[in-house]
Amino acid sequence: MADQYAYSGDDKRPTEIPAIRWEEPPEGPVLVLLDQTRLPAEEVELVCTDAPALVEAIRSLAVRGAPLLGVAGAYGVALAAVRGFDVNEAADALASARPTAVNLALGVRRAQAAHEAALAKGGDVRQAAAAALAAARQLHREDAEASARMAEHGLALLDELLPGGGHRILTHCNTGSLVSGGEGTAFAVALAAHRAGRLRRLWVDETRPLLQGARLTAYEAARSGMAYTLLTDNAAGSLFAAGEVDAVLIGADRITADGSVANKIGSYPLAVLARYHHVPFIVVAPVTTVDPDTPDGASIEVEQRAGHEVTEVVAPQVPVAGAEAGGGIPIAPLGTQAYNPAFDVTPPELVTAIVTEEGAVSPVTAEALAEVCARSRRVAAG
Amino acid sequence: MADQYAYSGDDKRPTEIPAIRWEEPPEGPVLVLLDQTRLPAEEVELVCTDAPALVEAIRSLAVRGAPLLGVAGAYGVALAAVRGFDVNEAADALASARPTAVNLALGVRRAQAAHEAALAKGGDVRQAAAAALAAARQLHREDAEASARMAEHGLALLDELLPGGGHRILTHCNTGSLVSGGEGTAFAVALAAHRAGRLRRLWVDETRPLLQGARLTAYEAARSGMAYTLLTDNAAGSLFAAGEVDAVLIGADRITADGSVANKIGSYPLAVLARYHHVPFIVVAPVTTVDPDTPDGASIEVEQRAGHEVTEVVAPQVPVAGAEAGGGIPIAPLGTQAYNPAFDVTPPELVTAIVTEEGAVSPVTAEALAEVCARSRRVAAG
Repeated sequence: MADQYAYSGDDKRPTEIPAIRWEEPPEGPVLVLLDQTRLPAEEVELVCTDAPALVEAIRSLAVRGAPLLGVAGAYGVALAAVRGFDVNEAADALASARPTAVNLALGVRRAQAAHEAALAKGGDVRQAAAAALAAARQLHREDAEASARMAEHGLALLDELLPGGGHRILTHCNTGSLVSGGEGTAFAVALAAHRAGRLRRLWVDETRPLLQGARLTAYEAARSGMAYTLLTDNAAGSLFAAGEVDAVLIGADRITADGSVANKIGSYPLAVLARYHHVPFIVVAPVTTVDPDTPDGASIEVEQRAGHEVTEVVAPQVPVAGAEAGGGIPIAPLGTQAYNPAFDVTPPELVTAIVTEEGAVSPVTAEALAEVCARSRRVAAG
Repeated sequence: MADQYAYSGDDKRPTEIPAIRWEEPPEGPVLVLLDQTRLPAEEVELVCTDAPALVEAIRSLAVRGAPLLGVAGAYGVALAAVRGFDVNEAADALASARPTAVNLALGVRRAQAAHEAALAKGGDVRQAAAAALAAARQLHREDAEASARMAEHGLALLDELLPGGGHRILTHCNTGSLVSGGEGTAFAVALAAHRAGRLRRLWVDETRPLLQGARLTAYEAARSGMAYTLLTDNAAGSLFAAGEVDAVLIGADRITADGSVANKIGSYPLAVLARYHHVPFIVVAPVTTVDPDTPDGASIEVEQRAGHEVTEVVAPQVPVAGAEAGGGIPIAPLGTQAYNPAFDVTPPELVTAIVTEEGAVSPVTAEALAEVCARSRRVAAG
């Protein structure tokens, strides 16, 4: 079950609540999540005392973002084990809470495997639970370290491409600590630039239809004390034309063997604008994002999402009487059909560099990508 | 004063209510407006019986769009004259209802001048009022005729550029009969293609931040029976990449002497995408939009609008308690700064053609534009 604690003070400025944390109060271990469906209006924490509560939190998108889901899944298995529930039952429920989230299942299996291995070695239930928790903590730590290394490589690349400093960075969607066990991908690079005193401005695309930029990236930028400005996605063109963008930094959902980048809808137009204006377009993503089994962008099937995400606006703080399909406020005539692809695909020739925890790939070629993946496997095996 | 009549039936499908009409019921002449602030949720008509009611309707954006404001202003002067109010006082109030709307002041002055001329020729008050009304009707008719000619020239150009037919047209913002005494500019061309059986699909950009595409263009497309699909502005890139766009049709707020086009924010990125994908980018605007006194795009001062248009979503049907600066629903953290230019500027080299009521200009050069303007003046003088 889950309890809720609301932290929103009078001034409503974002605080430093982490997206996920394991706590061990006297009444027993809990997994505490920042409820992302309530941001930025309220900072509410969900306190999960068992796996079903976490499953519900994953389903409702209270916790989201590929790497963070992996960490959450692993902790969920640990929670079941530590509290004496059926670990395999919990693992199955967690792994299938969002069927397309590969990282979630991977995180769950990792903690489950550690639990099984401890039992197989003759450990007792308590030792097996400790092993599951250690595996979850290890995944969390690895994720944070990968973020830190991407940030380091990304900042070095920025400094190389833009020797003058005073970077003005445009970003899209949400790629910070709300989607990661660490500080994220593209956002982590911007944050590193900010901490180094070299970020002049973070331009934040609002990222329609779900407004992750307005709701979440603006929230993360505000709580990090960055100089940031929000814009509608269609206003980026003016910024490029005015020479106000020094680099674009985005994340990736998937990178194919040839270096094509599938990412949140709206990434590709930024790549075309960046090319037209001779501005670097930089993708920041962990090596696990590279999918060597998908040869190129044309092989990616693009998920088409429900039209009501476009024809309605959802504002959690405003319940709508007589709500439509999506429970939101209609902004188009009833019956309007919408084109709503989840992501678009940017071909490698428009990508200046792909920054991973193993270093930057630039220019983006199949060979260079394969090399960085091989390096990652050597590190993992070593 | 203004009365309201709501026409929304049970099925809520858009009807054919015109944006503006002059009526003469037994209780005296009135100007009837379709209240655009209530669209697409409700079709409500505002019935103005005097100029102050019309001033209020203009200020509240119940009636909007450059050409339509000119027609409204002229009818407002006629209304004051016919109903026996002080015509000059009404004209001054109407002309200054929206200070930057050049067409509004022009329409007002035209009806006022006709009124004065009739009096100067020895006409009585009734004859002068009839002259003002005739001037308003003439302006309304000219506007409709210009729309029809733009539609004709635009369709001919489309057929020339895309001989295969089955046009899939992408449009941005709202350019139809809600902004015009006729059927509009870019939308009128798409409508002509639809009537000729040659429109396969109208792709409608939602047009953040004020959502004129989702709210108004989708409404106009629905009531015209067109095959249309709504999309977020940032999804256009995917459509281009998939080869789903045959041409872009947009309107213009202002065209400078060199052919630079100032239009709703988000137009320029479409022009860059269209160029990158070798798709025609066509601007449809009356000759009066050409401003020969502004030499080029760099000379245009871009209006920066309030940030709350971006940080809040306004839904007229949902009153928000404790509302923020703009009275809407916050979608970003409080205190978030937003970049919100009203329009962007597309340079002539990215514009395939400018279609006016005097014909199409292609390629777009200062000389060709000057020639079409001169032709327009000869027609007006002839």
